[in-house]
Amino acid sequence: MINSNLKLYFEKFSSLTEQWFDNNIVPLAPMTEGLTKAMRYSFLNGGKRLRPVLVFASGEMFGVNEGLLLPYAVSVEMVHTYSLIHDDLPAMDNDDLRRGKPTCHKVFGEAEAILAGDALLTLAFEIIANDKYTSPVPDKIRLEAIKKLSIAAGYGGMVGGQFGDIISENKSITAQEMNFIHNKKTGALISYSCYVGALISNISVKDVNNLEDYGYNLGLAFQITDDILDITSTTEVLGKSVGKDEKSHKATYPSMYGLDVSYKMAQDAVNKCEDILSPYGKRGETLKQIARFVLERKS
Amino acid sequence: MINSNLKLYFEKFSSLTEQWFDNNIVPLAPMTEGLTKAMRYSFLNGGKRLRPVLVFASGEMFGVNEGLLLPYAVSVEMVHTYSLIHDDLPAMDNDDLRRGKPTCHKVFGEAEAILAGDALLTLAFEIIANDKYTSPVPDKIRLEAIKKLSIAAGYGGMVGGQFGDIISENKSITAQEMNFIHNKKTGALISYSCYVGALISNISVKDVNNLEDYGYNLGLAFQITDDILDITSTTEVLGKSVGKDEKSHKATYPSMYGLDVSYKMAQDAVNKCEDILSPYGKRGETLKQIARFVLERKS
Repeated sequence: MINSNLKLYFEKFSSLTEQWFDNNIVPLAPMTEGLTKAMRYSFLNGGKRLRPVLVFASGEMFGVNEGLLLPYAVSVEMVHTYSLIHDDLPAMDNDDLRRGKPTCHKVFGEAEAILAGDALLTLAFEIIANDKYTSPVPDKIRLEAIKKLSIAAGYGGMVGGQFGDIISENKSITAQEMNFIHNKKTGALISYSCYVGALISNISVKDVNNLEDYGYNLGLAFQITDDILDITSTTEVLGKSVGKDEKSHKATYPSMYGLDVSYKMAQDAVNKCEDILSPYGKRGETLKQIARFVLERKS
Repeated sequence: MINSNLKLYFEKFSSLTEQWFDNNIVPLAPMTEGLTKAMRYSFLNGGKRLRPVLVFASGEMFGVNEGLLLPYAVSVEMVHTYSLIHDDLPAMDNDDLRRGKPTCHKVFGEAEAILAGDALLTLAFEIIANDKYTSPVPDKIRLEAIKKLSIAAGYGGMVGGQFGDIISENKSITAQEMNFIHNKKTGALISYSCYVGALISNISVKDVNNLEDYGYNLGLAFQITDDILDITSTTEVLGKSVGKDEKSHKATYPSMYGLDVSYKMAQDAVNKCEDILSPYGKRGETLKQIARFVLERKS
């Protein structure tokens, strides 16, 4: 169960992220009102906001103020939202439901959804590069954040993982291949979120790497629990279709190792997260709680 | 007709751009080989390379060496290629032919094509942000280039124009709306190409703005001649399906103003380009020739 402090923490930073988007991403011209509507629909459609919260928690751990972290938090959530829009398309996972509501292409049409995704991805990079939003952070660090974000999201990261996922449907794959898919598809962006919060703190390379390593293990735990929930949860609780992995014969941790061993693997990853954080004492408390939450979440 | 000097100029810089891509964008993992293949297929599929050539011509006009310009040239062509892949999709323009060859989704599948486009867009930002490729250019200028590229490509630029285009099919629109679509869909990225070449030169804001203005007018001429060629050319010469605009009842310059007035409008835009360049004397010669070429091209 998520404790009430952590619940408040998620609420506070989800709300900051959503408010920023709501205030800043508005129609630019009458002809593109529908496009902005589709972008806003998908971004402001609820969701856990795990990635933005990780940016805040990692940055705050090293004393960075939330105003500096906010554009980076919004930017990674834009990339996450774009990936969900494209993954849900008929040509990809063909999903009608996302966070309990009709998916973007169901509401706005397929071409419109492709473009809304493209626009959100493009915008994520502008947010970091535009002085208007992020100028108090040194240029060198902003460039590093952009580089890391594009690597995490790109053909060697998230898009690569989604590609592996798509070509593996209805095929038997090795544990190594499944690991590759999950790490890239989900892990890369979660790991980046922890990395970028620490990066902005201007702390030692060792600390930044520790946070990235924490993110890597958190991502792993997240992927495994995601696979488990697809089997053990319901569509109502999860807000998206369940049982999809089995229907499309996707290789998952439970299908490869069984539910019990999978849960144990997630637990091990979360223990690793805690080990990485222990030298930081009380400062690492929020990230520890987040790791625990990822393991025990019900949706 | 394109003169032989300009032909050599295009060949030289197309070839530099293609070589860079061919050498640097290679499979990163066995599982994503097909993805890299799709990206390479679309990028290395011929094409005029107008945008990279504009980056080189604008930069060289102010004495920047071609090595510094190369990553920016590649990056804008990646964005252009991604936009073609997504525009050709069944949900968008549903095109089977591009540069005389089957479109990306025809060869690799729809999901794969969406992801190849996503990957190329993402990569374009990495190229500029990664020290490995672009470090001799000051950080401030690289951030400015990323900002401008994302604005030109994003929901207020190219994606916005494509959205306007999609929602206007089979509808009657005003001349102002058609202008909006064309400016955003094609003009924004062409204008950015001229802008970024000048930006890297570290010249005066006035000169950079002049080059952006040249790019804006060149983009306009390009859009109009594109519409004209869709009527007057053949699929063999053009390497893509002709007569599509009429079939899908798209508003174009010729449908709005007739062929003669449209040609006159393109001519006016090219005259404007020449006016902007005339204070630069001989240095503006290549860009002048490019404007003339855009007006007189047969494909």
